[in-house]
Amino acid sequence: MKAARWYKAKDIRVEEVEEPTASGHEVKIKVMGCGVCGSDLHEYLVGPIFIPVDEPHPISGDKAPIIMGHEFAGEVVEVGDKVTTLQPGDRVAVEPIYAPNKNGAYIDHQYNLSPQLGFHGLSGGGGGFSEYTVVGEHMAHKMPDELSYEQGALVEPAAVGLHAVRQSSLKAGDSAAVFGAGPIGLMIIDALKAAGASRIYASEVSKSRLQMAENLGATVIDASASDPVKEIHRLNGGGVDVSYEATGVAEVLQQSIDVTRTGGEIIVASIWEGEAAINYNDIVIKERSMKGIIAYRHIYPAVMELMRKGYFSADAMITDRIKLDDIVEQGFETLVADKSQVKIMVSPE
Amino acid sequence: MKAARWYKAKDIRVEEVEEPTASGHEVKIKVMGCGVCGSDLHEYLVGPIFIPVDEPHPISGDKAPIIMGHEFAGEVVEVGDKVTTLQPGDRVAVEPIYAPNKNGAYIDHQYNLSPQLGFHGLSGGGGGFSEYTVVGEHMAHKMPDELSYEQGALVEPAAVGLHAVRQSSLKAGDSAAVFGAGPIGLMIIDALKAAGASRIYASEVSKSRLQMAENLGATVIDASASDPVKEIHRLNGGGVDVSYEATGVAEVLQQSIDVTRTGGEIIVASIWEGEAAINYNDIVIKERSMKGIIAYRHIYPAVMELMRKGYFSADAMITDRIKLDDIVEQGFETLVADKSQVKIMVSPE
Repeated sequence: MKAARWYKAKDIRVEEVEEPTASGHEVKIKVMGCGVCGSDLHEYLVGPIFIPVDEPHPISGDKAPIIMGHEFAGEVVEVGDKVTTLQPGDRVAVEPIYAPNKNGAYIDHQYNLSPQLGFHGLSGGGGGFSEYTVVGEHMAHKMPDELSYEQGALVEPAAVGLHAVRQSSLKAGDSAAVFGAGPIGLMIIDALKAAGASRIYASEVSKSRLQMAENLGATVIDASASDPVKEIHRLNGGGVDVSYEATGVAEVLQQSIDVTRTGGEIIVASIWEGEAAINYNDIVIKERSMKGIIAYRHIYPAVMELMRKGYFSADAMITDRIKLDDIVEQGFETLVADKSQVKIMVSPE
Repeated sequence: MKAARWYKAKDIRVEEVEEPTASGHEVKIKVMGCGVCGSDLHEYLVGPIFIPVDEPHPISGDKAPIIMGHEFAGEVVEVGDKVTTLQPGDRVAVEPIYAPNKNGAYIDHQYNLSPQLGFHGLSGGGGGFSEYTVVGEHMAHKMPDELSYEQGALVEPAAVGLHAVRQSSLKAGDSAAVFGAGPIGLMIIDALKAAGASRIYASEVSKSRLQMAENLGATVIDASASDPVKEIHRLNGGGVDVSYEATGVAEVLQQSIDVTRTGGEIIVASIWEGEAAINYNDIVIKERSMKGIIAYRHIYPAVMELMRKGYFSADAMITDRIKLDDIVEQGFETLVADKSQVKIMVSPE
């Protein structure tokens, strides 16, 4: 079968690999759609970050070259002899997190915080940029009939956005600011709508991303043209209740602090390439709090229920659809060159 | 009467000033003891920080030269005609926070977060390094008979320590680490004992402060001799539930993060002189949270109740007792030169 494998930074190859089979608690999935994620792009440009190169990943037992792709959905085509909850023909969204588990069940209720955290499609063991892949039964969540496979492939980034909002102190009626309107920022905006935020401000520099945030209902601030802190304080005197940092840029982190009210909260939902300096008096004297979040846990079913209500819509997020054969040129290279792109969906056929 | 007034950095003068009188909702207090605080020292060395110099403080209406001293207790000797809760002879600990208030009552339940935040003894209107001073009735808390005036003067720094612990997520049975065993760090250690922390680690470089922390029951780590992060992880595998940063040093802030468990909390209880750089992946990937605290609110009565039970004891905190006349040489200069000093108590007579 065909799969896209990461060899090293700037070297991802679409090639023939052996087709996997399911045994025990595993299920084999025919991939119907897989999104390209910001972390895929990081691995392509400056990796390895999550990809195991020298030592095999403790759960997958794999190291590079590894098959990429962790935002995917597909059809179950084969099940191992111990599988009880799924059968061939089931439509599933795959939760790609590897964490210590026993007989297919997560043993840690905060499995996204496991020291062995890994991802199917980043840490070996197969991935979604492939015709078929095999995952543990506990990783495959049955999709409601009315959701498309594309929608199923968006459950993963939507889960990040929903987890960020669920881990924050935001309550219905609160005001919020989102810094960065890439895939995660947009998902956070939609999760804030689901959570009943009264006002949602989005700060971003790309015109097309600002347009997408506006389409979702956010009040947008073009950070290339005006100071988002001044602008949001002008629009929402006293500052917002909660801000969400989704850029990983130090200057923007300081903005995400300054934009909150006295006693407000900052959620850091970005991965950092190095240290960032801020003035901690801005945390101390206003008794603000700051919290980091990584991935998600236990919320795939909730995300899919919200999708049935219209949140996290593929129409609002997907900017291009391509074939697996074209993933390097039309996927990775396009995302590097064209910041109007948000979510590119890859189909193996 | 005699008072110590701040003119500029390194220029504090003990001189004769006019004795104030109480009217309306005010009470006049004969000061019986006033501690020298770290912020007094900052004002002495590199001020003005809180002291109004160009514009008068919006609540006190005063600017430099101003009388210093905000950690004090004394005897009520005169009351204004609208005072209903106090009378001459009452022994009181003074809560020095200025914040918008109406007829003697705080109108903001989070008055320590007022944008007009000021302190009696830093922002004009009199202070505790003085024979007498006049404060609003709402600022003077009657002391239980069994507490000494020295103990009353310690209510202020003890309130900072108790507020830090109350604002944290620490629950009885949790483990904690305190960075810096100066006056605030030591008060935090005692507040942690009151809150039922199961294990309390204290990291500090001064030998005598380490001894004081140990006397309070903390497990101490000499940060000049070993790495407190490694040492605390060795002693308390997985990291502590909550850490408290009481130094204002960037390197120590990073330690206070690294020492917490996955999902742990860092309380920043220090004032910063500039920016500090940390790696935010250490916040994000372990879903830690960080919260700032400033001063205290609504807890003077609770602090005094805990003092009756033996917490925040003058015996454990006070390292020297001096006269107001000697405050510059034996107070400020001694605190600069001798890091074995913790709390110096000044008596006006």
